Amino acid sequence: MVVNLPDKIGREAILQVHTRNKPLAQDADLMEVAATTPGLSGADIKNLCNEAALLAAKRGQQEVHLKDFIDSLEKIILGPERPIVLSPADRERIAYHESGHAILGLVVPGADPVNRVSIVPRGQALGVTYQRPPADRYNYPEAYLRARIIGMLGGRAAEEIVYGTKTTGAENDIEQATDLAHNMVTRWGMSEKLGMVKLAARQNQYLGMGQRQLDAVSEQTAALVDEEVHKIINDSHEQAKQLLRDHRQQLDALVTALLERETLDEHEILDVTGLPPAPALKDLPNQAKL
Amino acid sequence: MVVNLPDKIGREAILQVHTRNKPLAQDADLMEVAATTPGLSGADIKNLCNEAALLAAKRGQQEVHLKDFIDSLEKIILGPERPIVLSPADRERIAYHESGHAILGLVVPGADPVNRVSIVPRGQALGVTYQRPPADRYNYPEAYLRARIIGMLGGRAAEEIVYGTKTTGAENDIEQATDLAHNMVTRWGMSEKLGMVKLAARQNQYLGMGQRQLDAVSEQTAALVDEEVHKIINDSHEQAKQLLRDHRQQLDALVTALLERETLDEHEILDVTGLPPAPALKDLPNQAKL
Amino acid sequence: MVVNLPDKIGREAILQVHTRNKPLAQDADLMEVAATTPGLSGADIKNLCNEAALLAAKRGQQEVHLKDFIDSLEKIILGPERPIVLSPADRERIAYHESGHAILGLVVPGADPVNRVSIVPRGQALGVTYQRPPADRYNYPEAYLRARIIGMLGGRAAEEIVYGTKTTGAENDIEQATDLAHNMVTRWGMSEKLGMVKLAARQNQYLGMGQRQLDAVSEQTAALVDEEVHKIINDSHEQAKQLLRDHRQQLDALVTALLERETLDEHEILDVTGLPPAPALKDLPNQAKL
Amino acid sequence: MVVNLPDKIGREAILQVHTRNKPLAQDADLMEVAATTPGLSGADIKNLCNEAALLAAKRGQQEVHLKDFIDSLEKIILGPERPIVLSPADRERIAYHESGHAILGLVVPGADPVNRVSIVPRGQALGVTYQRPPADRYNYPEAYLRARIIGMLGGRAAEEIVYGTKTTGAENDIEQATDLAHNMVTRWGMSEKLGMVKLAARQNQYLGMGQRQLDAVSEQTAALVDEEVHKIINDSHEQAKQLLRDHRQQLDALVTALLERETLDEHEILDVTGLPPAPALKDLPNQAKL
Amino acid sequence: MVVNLPDKIGREAILQVHTRNKPLAQDADLMEVAATTPGLSGADIKNLCNEAALLAAKRGQQEVHLKDFIDSLEKIILGPERPIVLSPADRERIAYHESGHAILGLVVPGADPVNRVSIVPRGQALGVTYQRPPADRYNYPEAYLRARIIGMLGGRAAEEIVYGTKTTGAENDIEQATDLAHNMVTRWGMSEKLGMVKLAARQNQYLGMGQRQLDAVSEQTAALVDEEVHKIINDSHEQAKQLLRDHRQQLDALVTALLERETLDEHEILDVTGLPPAPALKDLPNQAKL
Amino acid sequence: MVVNLPDKIGREAILQVHTRNKPLAQDADLMEVAATTPGLSGADIKNLCNEAALLAAKRGQQEVHLKDFIDSLEKIILGPERPIVLSPADRERIAYHESGHAILGLVVPGADPVNRVSIVPRGQALGVTYQRPPADRYNYPEAYLRARIIGMLGGRAAEEIVYGTKTTGAENDIEQATDLAHNMVTRWGMSEKLGMVKLAARQNQYLGMGQRQLDAVSEQTAALVDEEVHKIINDSHEQAKQLLRDHRQQLDALVTALLERETLDEHEILDVTGLPPAPALKDLPNQAKL
Repeated sequence: MVVNLPDKIGREAILQVHTRNKPLAQDADLMEVAATTPGLSGADIKNLCNEAALLAAKRGQQEVHLKDFIDSLEKIILGPERPIVLSPADRERIAYHESGHAILGLVVPGADPVNRVSIVPRGQALGVTYQRPPADRYNYPEAYLRARIIGMLGGRAAEEIVYGTKTTGAENDIEQATDLAHNMVTRWGMSEKLGMVKLAARQNQYLGMGQRQLDAVSEQTAALVDEEVHKIINDSHEQAKQLLRDHRQQLDALVTALLERETLDEHEILDVTGLPPAPALKDLPNQAKL
Repeated sequence: MVVNLPDKIGREAILQVHTRNKPLAQDADLMEVAATTPGLSGADIKNLCNEAALLAAKRGQQEVHLKDFIDSLEKIILGPERPIVLSPADRERIAYHESGHAILGLVVPGADPVNRVSIVPRGQALGVTYQRPPADRYNYPEAYLRARIIGMLGGRAAEEIVYGTKTTGAENDIEQATDLAHNMVTRWGMSEKLGMVKLAARQNQYLGMGQRQLDAVSEQTAALVDEEVHKIINDSHEQAKQLLRDHRQQLDALVTALLERETLDEHEILDVTGLPPAPALKDLPNQAKL
Repeated sequence: MVVNLPDKIGREAILQVHTRNKPLAQDADLMEVAATTPGLSGADIKNLCNEAALLAAKRGQQEVHLKDFIDSLEKIILGPERPIVLSPADRERIAYHESGHAILGLVVPGADPVNRVSIVPRGQALGVTYQRPPADRYNYPEAYLRARIIGMLGGRAAEEIVYGTKTTGAENDIEQATDLAHNMVTRWGMSEKLGMVKLAARQNQYLGMGQRQLDAVSEQTAALVDEEVHKIINDSHEQAKQLLRDHRQQLDALVTALLERETLDEHEILDVTGLPPAPALKDLPNQAKL
Repeated sequence: MVVNLPDKIGREAILQVHTRNKPLAQDADLMEVAATTPGLSGADIKNLCNEAALLAAKRGQQEVHLKDFIDSLEKIILGPERPIVLSPADRERIAYHESGHAILGLVVPGADPVNRVSIVPRGQALGVTYQRPPADRYNYPEAYLRARIIGMLGGRAAEEIVYGTKTTGAENDIEQATDLAHNMVTRWGMSEKLGMVKLAARQNQYLGMGQRQLDAVSEQTAALVDEEVHKIINDSHEQAKQLLRDHRQQLDALVTALLERETLDEHEILDVTGLPPAPALKDLPNQAKL
Repeated sequence: MVVNLPDKIGREAILQVHTRNKPLAQDADLMEVAATTPGLSGADIKNLCNEAALLAAKRGQQEVHLKDFIDSLEKIILGPERPIVLSPADRERIAYHESGHAILGLVVPGADPVNRVSIVPRGQALGVTYQRPPADRYNYPEAYLRARIIGMLGGRAAEEIVYGTKTTGAENDIEQATDLAHNMVTRWGMSEKLGMVKLAARQNQYLGMGQRQLDAVSEQTAALVDEEVHKIINDSHEQAKQLLRDHRQQLDALVTALLERETLDEHEILDVTGLPPAPALKDLPNQAKL
Repeated sequence: MVVNLPDKIGREAILQVHTRNKPLAQDADLMEVAATTPGLSGADIKNLCNEAALLAAKRGQQEVHLKDFIDSLEKIILGPERPIVLSPADRERIAYHESGHAILGLVVPGADPVNRVSIVPRGQALGVTYQRPPADRYNYPEAYLRARIIGMLGGRAAEEIVYGTKTTGAENDIEQATDLAHNMVTRWGMSEKLGMVKLAARQNQYLGMGQRQLDAVSEQTAALVDEEVHKIINDSHEQAKQLLRDHRQQLDALVTALLERETLDEHEILDVTGLPPAPALKDLPNQAKL
């Protein structure tokens, strides 16, 4: 069982170190900031503190507020806003793409809560759906991984059910979903056909997507790996499309709101769609627990 | 969703920087120049400014005009004119090759507008068809990509329907079309048979054509990739030939004009062929829009 | 027949060197410490001596006790404790995972005795089951290797029979079990189908898991290797699940104790489960011995 | 469409630069020299000018004549003459080999005119057939490429129909013919079965023969490439043998002359064989031209 | 036909050089020492001379005796004795393993004479069977190679027929037997099915076992190589087991003696087992000789 | 058509340079020496001159004789004599091995004349059969290559028909024969099934045997290459055995003489065997020649 990167307690400690010489406002609850930043390294957190202080100064504040941290967070992760001029058609399509991710983040059991949806272009992204785990995770259930894959494929799925056409905009989603499905089959023993056999070397997950690797296995095993990965992706893709068809009304509502307001936070998303947060994953109910 | 290189706004800003010390004429609208130069890097744009100023000086002008930018653009992209002596037969064949690209740029829905066609040899090219997107693009629909592939194969297609023979002149077109089709199948999830699975690593698109790569997939998946790429190319090739047969009269007219005038701009092309610009891509009409 | 790393005698000698200037308590039997540390290198043992002395000082003792060595041992192998906050559900699941390893360490003939089970997160691990061979081993019987594989797969097996679901927490177990099964087939001649043929180069066992390698064999041999490895893993997985179903009561008892006490030593484990230590491996009884 | 190396105009300019300080005779028409030297780099041309001047001096001339350039050309391309003593049998076989190339250069439509045939060993070659394109070429029709392959295989073909046996002497011809056929299939879209798909990366054509490469294609595509290359080579081989059987009389006549005179120029070849130069390639006659 | 390393004459010369300044006893016959050391390099022999002198000094002798050379030889080849404490069960198993090698060295025609058997752990080995060719060999008959493979597999074979179980202790034997069988098939033309075809590059035999290599052969040839290697190994394994079953009494006697005395020399082995030395290889008797 | 290394004329010139300061005897005809040394590089020839002068001095001669050159030649090519003590059985087997090569050098049409046979170990070789082409060769007929392969396989063939057993002594022969057969199929277009297709890159022939390479061909082509190489080797092996069975009497006679005299020159070989030199290769008689 592997733990990576600083956890919430570690992040809070790092935040304390790097805000020592910065005037914090009452509302700048570092534990809250720590809770919002799973996945960030120590260096990322140091950057975040500096950016938040700069932003506070730019805003003419004497102290750094929680909002300064939150607003700096997107810049740390995605880069600064870019003043790209998009056609109304492109803008609508991006709104559907992001709303596809977001709606699935609300309706797939076990999905991480949707913090924010935005069609403001930032860094390399034309839009962003930001999902935050409610707590640090150290152990990922298979159902959670499938929920993430379904959510990743939701951008393209929304475009397909609305426009009937595909665009290149899903490239990143395709990379991440394939990577996750490949790991399920080759490293985490989650394929019934292949069982608890390691088939690929562990790779540094924080160095982005590279070429998928396989150990020295036979062609017939390689073919089985491909089939199992394909099956996970295809099933998730079908589920993504069906769930969005079932929630078309909420999807359209979210797009309408996004085109008006550009960015929606968690409360606004719940309000606009009228949907509750995604239910937690349940283990099988008929299993006796201690 | 990935954005690359400076967009129109960025290019305009870079143009302003590099023309700061150059006397610009009234008509030298930098926004117009920016609109004409999608795909250019910052360094390309700096070169362009210098070349335009040199050309203006060479032409005895006090100020740099829009035309100086436009005329320098081809030199930046394709290199200077080359005084190659071609046989009449070669010249005619090149005219048909370029006209094949150009006619398809007019009749395939979604194709980028054809700015210029020329049979003046430049740098490594014996002729050139220059297509400019009407605005910066950040997201490419599948139909647009197919339109580009059809257009790329149009040079060879024209030679085939007119002469019934093939030449080596389509090598670059073959490389680019295969590269695009391969990306559609392996990175953008645009093959029904393979679905939303990533099968090849993202490569730097600005370093020219190299060897096609695949991730560590099985032989049966590799064969499926080959079949799907083959199918995209073959269907596009057939469509290119059929469309040119359907517009043979306009093709011949364009060739006649090219042999006389060597270079035609957008208005002349429309005038000579009597064709309207290519219609825009339409999303499916029966889909409700907001 | 290959011997690696210092053996018990060697380790005792190294311990004597590195405790020369440290005040040892009566109970700090270095032979006992040496018996507890098979697999440690000379450098590990030096670290252990230093850590034990530091711990003794921290505890305000004048002398280094056996307990200081034992308590430092986990830190040497697994890193220091980490104050991770786990949800009750995650904690229970980890308790079942570790108890799965532990119960199999008690009921599979030939398994190394279970020294300690703990759900206190340490270094990269969220929990740990620590098994110690009763003496240095220089030669590993096939049945012992199978016992180890069954034990390695016991964490996931326990999660499956209790929750019916899988998590990523078995990644390390999958790597180690596959590595061992692969060596059985390709280096130790333990597959009936492949016989006493070497099929993979010997690798440094102390550099962690890398990509599995094969010699230059044909595809049909590679497929046979995959099948045999698969069979070992699957059979062991089935055995692990069946044995845990057969000892569900003891499994639950151990989890209950772990959730209360967090860490149990060998005597507590035997006490809580009411199980005897695992029986030794028996060679076939009908074979005449000298 | 790619242009490489200096063309006729470029070569003439380079010739002018490097003959600036050399006394040229009336007949030393640099445009004629430029026409004779397609394929030469700037460095080759500089060497040629120096060699021609040296040869003129050696011949006791005050000025450099056209003949000095022509006679130096072979030395530049093939190296100096080598006084190898060949057996009459070897000499006759080489004469048939070269005459095989030469006769096909006369009778295959589209073949480049045969400038010279020689059985004087030079550099690495025991004999040479020198074919010169009538003008610079920038675009190669498929029929021309097939004509070249047929010609390349003509040396071996002649040996086979005359002696019924094979020798190693065709190695260079085999390399060049395979390379050309492979490019037709993998880079120039000239296989009906594979279509306009790029299957191999463009390689530097001026660095000699290396190992043939393929992109990451499936085994079934690789097999198809092999079949198509094989078919082009085999068909060309059959055509070469049939054409030489049909012109056996002319072949024998050329060999007889070569054994007497060792080297024949274009006029002597036409005279000895009584054949006209190879007809030009015709595009299909039923295609309307402008 | 390849000769490697110094032969007996060369070794004697090297021994003379390195004992020049050492007082040799009457019985220290360097020709005898040379005969005992085939396979040793010049550097090994130099080490041997130094070790023998050190041992003589340690034993309080004025001169170096033959026994000092012999006793130093094992240290040179296997490293010094290691005081490992083995369980009685492990000790017995090792005795059977080594006795399996030794008995086959006595009963397989053509096997090299067995010089010594020992269950004293030395360097990396837990036991050792030392076989010495009666003279330098320059040319190895196929039957001799098969005899060696049978002998190599005899350690595991003995464990199997006595205990019915396998251990990892045969790893080295498996490596060496496979390497030899692979060479028979791929370099020495000793497979009827593959014939006198070279299939793998010659490798430095003195750099230990690496990964087996194959030349660029087809999958079907690679499969045939695997089958032939497999067949040699399997047949030899069966023969080893059958021969040991046929000599079970002698095997047990040798084990009993080994457990008592730990090391037996050639005379003791013959005495304990009551077996004559292995018969020499006979060429077919019905072949006429000169 | 490729020529390599200095030919006879070149070698004579090099000999003249390196004997300039050496007193040559009347009979030291450098043209004769040049004729005896095809395949030698300039550096080899320089060495030869020095060795011959040294040998003459050692023999107490004032001048260097032809015999000094001839006797030094073997040392240059094979290294100095080695005083290896071989058993009578090994010696007889080596005599049969070398005589197998030699007899085939006399009876296979087109084989190079056999200059010398020797069972005196030299350098890495236990025996040597030295064949010298009657003149420099620049072009190798297929029948000549097959004659060489048959001769190369003759050593093993003789051992097989006399002893019925195989040894490792044919390793070098196997390497060279496979290399030649592979080149016939992959570089020289001498397989009917594969035709005039290049399948492997040209390799430096003077750097010894490495791993066989293939271009990027499909598995089915690779299999065809293997089959064709296999067929050439197997057919030649059968021919070698049949020819030696047909000349068993001469084989035995040559062995008897070799065991007595150790080395035989060309005249002695012809005398002992009563065989004429191998007939020259004939081209097909029914082909008209000029």
